[in-house]
Amino acid sequence: MIRVLLVSHSKALAAGLADMIRQMASDESMVEIVPVGGAEDGSLGTDPMRVLEEFNKTKAGDYSLVFCDIGSSIMSAESAYDMIEDEELKKRIRFVDAPLVEGAFAAGVVATTTSDPDEVIEQALDSKSQKKFE
Amino acid sequence: MIRVLLVSHSKALAAGLADMIRQMASDESMVEIVPVGGAEDGSLGTDPMRVLEEFNKTKAGDYSLVFCDIGSSIMSAESAYDMIEDEELKKRIRFVDAPLVEGAFAAGVVATTTSDPDEVIEQALDSKSQKKFE
Repeated sequence: MIRVLLVSHSKALAAGLADMIRQMASDESMVEIVPVGGAEDGSLGTDPMRVLEEFNKTKAGDYSLVFCDIGSSIMSAESAYDMIEDEELKKRIRFVDAPLVEGAFAAGVVATTTSDPDEVIEQALDSKSQKKFE
Repeated sequence: MIRVLLVSHSKALAAGLADMIRQMASDESMVEIVPVGGAEDGSLGTDPMRVLEEFNKTKAGDYSLVFCDIGSSIMSAESAYDMIEDEELKKRIRFVDAPLVEGAFAAGVVATTTSDPDEVIEQALDSKSQKKFE
């Protein structure tokens, strides 16, 4: 199972994006979409402890692919990663250097067809070079 | 004045992203952040008529830069553009082929310092090549 983590400064953004992806990636046996948005009190910001909590939910054999918005959400996710003590778990957390919305959407859709994290990451990275307009 | 239009399938995503950008781009004399999210009834989807409504609010001398999420939101924005009758207005609507969150955020921040649409678009496009992780 692939878990797609959406780390954003905004709780509403992460929740809305999760809804959008779930509409196209509804097979819950294959993919889980996990919004991690906002600071602890729901205001704009990011919270490394909440990201760590989600990292720790990655079960054996599963992978968590991490998508971030900008700046300090990236730092929060990286701090959370550094706090992981289980080296085996660390290997199953993968940061994806793709745009949050476009990348996570592509990942979610592909993850309904494969559990190979590299394949899913490749599709997410492809979103960087896709043209939106003619 | 630069207007940054956020066209998304999700009302929550567009609203959350607008909040995020406004925090860093709060000079309302320079930049307006305009979320256009969801279908008419607030569910997931896009509505060309609402996009057109926002296009039509672009005053003389101002520019609307359009950022979309994926698929049919792009088509909705393009349909809305095709419905514009005023050729002068059309020139002040610019589609930006950048990631929704990262591109619109960069655009909003830069638009607090310049009203030159080309300069703002250039910075937004730059977000495509920026690395998030080492």
